[in-house]
Amino acid sequence: MARRRLVYEGKAKILYEGPEPGTLIQHFKDDATAFNAEKRDVIEGKGVLNNRISEHIMSGLNSIGVPTHFIKRLNMREQLVRACEIIPLEVVVRNVAAGSLSKRLGIEEGTALPRPIIEFYYKDDKLGDPMVTEEHILAFNWASQQDVDDIIALALRVNDFLAGMMLGVGIRLVDFKIECGRIYEGDFQRIVVADEISPDSCRLWDLRTGRKLDKDVFRRDLGSLTDAYAEVASRLGIMPRGGSGKTGPQLVH
Amino acid sequence: MARRRLVYEGKAKILYEGPEPGTLIQHFKDDATAFNAEKRDVIEGKGVLNNRISEHIMSGLNSIGVPTHFIKRLNMREQLVRACEIIPLEVVVRNVAAGSLSKRLGIEEGTALPRPIIEFYYKDDKLGDPMVTEEHILAFNWASQQDVDDIIALALRVNDFLAGMMLGVGIRLVDFKIECGRIYEGDFQRIVVADEISPDSCRLWDLRTGRKLDKDVFRRDLGSLTDAYAEVASRLGIMPRGGSGKTGPQLVH
Repeated sequence: MARRRLVYEGKAKILYEGPEPGTLIQHFKDDATAFNAEKRDVIEGKGVLNNRISEHIMSGLNSIGVPTHFIKRLNMREQLVRACEIIPLEVVVRNVAAGSLSKRLGIEEGTALPRPIIEFYYKDDKLGDPMVTEEHILAFNWASQQDVDDIIALALRVNDFLAGMMLGVGIRLVDFKIECGRIYEGDFQRIVVADEISPDSCRLWDLRTGRKLDKDVFRRDLGSLTDAYAEVASRLGIMPRGGSGKTGPQLVH
Repeated sequence: MARRRLVYEGKAKILYEGPEPGTLIQHFKDDATAFNAEKRDVIEGKGVLNNRISEHIMSGLNSIGVPTHFIKRLNMREQLVRACEIIPLEVVVRNVAAGSLSKRLGIEEGTALPRPIIEFYYKDDKLGDPMVTEEHILAFNWASQQDVDDIIALALRVNDFLAGMMLGVGIRLVDFKIECGRIYEGDFQRIVVADEISPDSCRLWDLRTGRKLDKDVFRRDLGSLTDAYAEVASRLGIMPRGGSGKTGPQLVH
């Protein structure tokens, strides 16, 4: 295979030029980082699991009319996506207090929020991805009011869909992060869900036991990260049960 | 004078029960604190200056129909105000990047913002007054949507008025903080500007030289704080020029 042009390399993924104009290949690495990359490791098999889980969720979103950049999965680590202009915001939706919200506002982890809370963080590693508000977003023109309204509407639909999908398999959707991008179609632009939706970008707690099935397992050293992610994949019916990333060749490519 | 009932003592002010129901006496102390009270000092005469400057600004706001809690000044350190239910938010309006905004978003101090930016901080010393968004405010019911809309409208009017007042005397209004409260009138409630508006709660830069005439003089050890505040008072025509708090008895009571 001819060497592909690398478009962007991030902490957990690489983007290559796609086979057709307007497409990209999104490659999932095994690298795990947390706390603005102060903590890092390579977790064998994580990329494979996230590729599959994100495919499952993004396809589902496409099927209910929530636009995403996802086109199709290509292989164990790669998916074909539409190129879009990424809006430099992490859009967080929270249903239950956890992580930085708990710390910042002194609310015990696990406290159900009275309603979903949407937060925006400005994507800038040097600044540590600071929380921002619509005021900052509009003043610095990171997105227009229409973009923000579209993003909020998308984020709430993703929340409903993902909460339902997870609840269906005994998992509580505590919070998640999405990124959005602009796709231009003739004179129009529209906002789509981009990046990935996976246990790297969600907090997922087992409904019965409270067991964490997400990146907090890595952040807080709670055991095998791939075991947790494989559990999510298995419950969603998209990968055979019991893979730790080391038990089968299907997880390591 | 009979001993008055203390209602609340904060870092820079004391509230006593007022002479009539629904009123309070607001007493300005000389205490200065910064960085969530990690830095503290007593600056002789500061309370006197802030009492006068805040009176001047609040009276002006009342006169243009921006409701405030201010009724009248009683003496060098005290003013009569309407009792109100303080909304636990610091409402910051920024015209020029400075302080925590510059640090958080990596924008050089002194950069004019493309438009005024309103920020909310949740008043909680233990949490270090974290920045919050309308999402948090509404979810945790610190204020209603109507309250927030009223607060924003008030904050922008205060910004226009204060920018004009300061520009008139050669001072650039970089940013300021207000607090708001609810006053109940029969079946109605309305939001008023409460607390104080003074060089303790504004950033004020000399238009020509950039000299700081606000609490940053204390935060950053830039010289005499009372000299700076007295300069503001003097330019506004409310106190004789040249008082450092030590030159005349009028400043120390």
